[in-house]
Amino acid sequence: MSIITVGTVAYDAIETPFGKTDKIVGGAATYIALAASYYVKPVDIVAVVGDDFSKEYIDMFHEKNIRTEGLQVKEGEKSFFWSGRYHNDMNSRDTLATELNVLADFDPVIPEAYQGADYVMLGNLTPAVQKSVIERLEKRPKLIVMDTMNFWMDTALEELIETIGMVDVLSINDEEARQLSGEYSLVKAAKKILAMGPKYLIIKKGEHGALLFNNDQVFFAPALPLEEVFDPTGAGDTFAGGFIGYLAHSDDTSFENMKRAVIYGSAMASFCVEKFGTERLENLTENEIKDRVQQFRDLVQLEGSF
Amino acid sequence: MSIITVGTVAYDAIETPFGKTDKIVGGAATYIALAASYYVKPVDIVAVVGDDFSKEYIDMFHEKNIRTEGLQVKEGEKSFFWSGRYHNDMNSRDTLATELNVLADFDPVIPEAYQGADYVMLGNLTPAVQKSVIERLEKRPKLIVMDTMNFWMDTALEELIETIGMVDVLSINDEEARQLSGEYSLVKAAKKILAMGPKYLIIKKGEHGALLFNNDQVFFAPALPLEEVFDPTGAGDTFAGGFIGYLAHSDDTSFENMKRAVIYGSAMASFCVEKFGTERLENLTENEIKDRVQQFRDLVQLEGSF
Repeated sequence: MSIITVGTVAYDAIETPFGKTDKIVGGAATYIALAASYYVKPVDIVAVVGDDFSKEYIDMFHEKNIRTEGLQVKEGEKSFFWSGRYHNDMNSRDTLATELNVLADFDPVIPEAYQGADYVMLGNLTPAVQKSVIERLEKRPKLIVMDTMNFWMDTALEELIETIGMVDVLSINDEEARQLSGEYSLVKAAKKILAMGPKYLIIKKGEHGALLFNNDQVFFAPALPLEEVFDPTGAGDTFAGGFIGYLAHSDDTSFENMKRAVIYGSAMASFCVEKFGTERLENLTENEIKDRVQQFRDLVQLEGSF
Repeated sequence: MSIITVGTVAYDAIETPFGKTDKIVGGAATYIALAASYYVKPVDIVAVVGDDFSKEYIDMFHEKNIRTEGLQVKEGEKSFFWSGRYHNDMNSRDTLATELNVLADFDPVIPEAYQGADYVMLGNLTPAVQKSVIERLEKRPKLIVMDTMNFWMDTALEELIETIGMVDVLSINDEEARQLSGEYSLVKAAKKILAMGPKYLIIKKGEHGALLFNNDQVFFAPALPLEEVFDPTGAGDTFAGGFIGYLAHSDDTSFENMKRAVIYGSAMASFCVEKFGTERLENLTENEIKDRVQQFRDLVQLEGSF
């Protein structure tokens, strides 16, 4: 099973109470692809960078069996750049810089070798770009998962809702779910959002876990209580990558299996925040992932009947 | 198994986006006793009211096998009164009035009939009063559970820490855990607080569930995603009442059983918020409780190995 993911591949400069980085690789598609690469091969990136994007990162993708034929390199242009500073509580951050650069007129291309994929992850991007990716797929995938953010609710709501109507799973955070639905109660919000088209909705609550809804059921995945969150950048994208990675690996899109996939996504996200940027995601072992998933299960485990 | 609970028995006037109440019965001991009354008989209240306190509420206690020999009635004085208004999100509120009245010089008395109880719940009150209750017990109970709030951390920290050192389980919310420990990470906070003496710590996170810690283990109980929170007043006390009620009923203070008790406490709290004040807690059936507990279990249930 292969996965196509579209999203940003970018440079990030991150500041947390624990330190700061120079420009390092970041972007939704980067985190999604890295997380998913532990479950399926190949993972196919559709994205755009400038000619300032380091070959060392492209090599890292290839080592992880992440294909980059769909990663356009624009000569004479610069990669998307984001810089942010996290506050002490790690739950809020200031954006210091956002330079769109190559992203401003990104026109995604799906290479022939990518066509036929059963699993597609639309990382956070302009809804119009996400939609054009769907339209350029020759075969309707088994599952299309979409991430987005409040910025598009403010600036491109109509296109956003249209794109949401074309996907199977929408993954957003609690504040975004409230904004999109106009409902404070997440149960009511989920009903309204599912009525927009997706069969499944994931509401990410950060350190408070994640909820998975369909029209009849709800599942809650806890977050692991952590001693230290070192750098939250990319955690949501890593969640998405682990989620779709596990689904593609097991090739089972039932609600029961999606519950497991939410746990796998949560486990991958819990690794992501342990080091700066993608560092922790670059060198995980199968056993580390297995142990972490078990920790998530143990956290809510109750023995016997009562 | 009997339970002694000390705490406020009071009048509340509550305003939520759904409406407002006149003076109705409230107070930590009221909610604790009502919730616990579904699990054990008798539940013994130690508290104080004025002569304005309605006999109808005393009758309601007696119907629920809640004993009131330890409920002092002060002639010519008024009951503790609290009034508050919840904001639209139900997570924040403004206190409109706090009239201590009889509570100002509350000197708790433990009636002879109460002595020998194995389970004691210290509801939120001045730490000095909570401490004097412990000192006035002729036999050390099997389990003392204590609730408190940030107000005592601001105004009576030394006595608070001394009292915390005398109990088995401390139950506080996340912000209180952070304030008490000076740690933002709840894992670090738990370590520091457990070092103050209690063997177990419950950190309540409201709509985000609750964590149970001992020195080696952690358990997470989710909160049920609700369509509507009608009135959050008393939810934390109801949680405590369900928690200690279940423990006393099963007479088992192992960590494994405490995990179950946290689920029962959470289930009782989820009923509490469905109507104003104590209304929903006055008329629950065994089947309603059983079904609700099952909903909590189903919410995190994963089938099979993976």
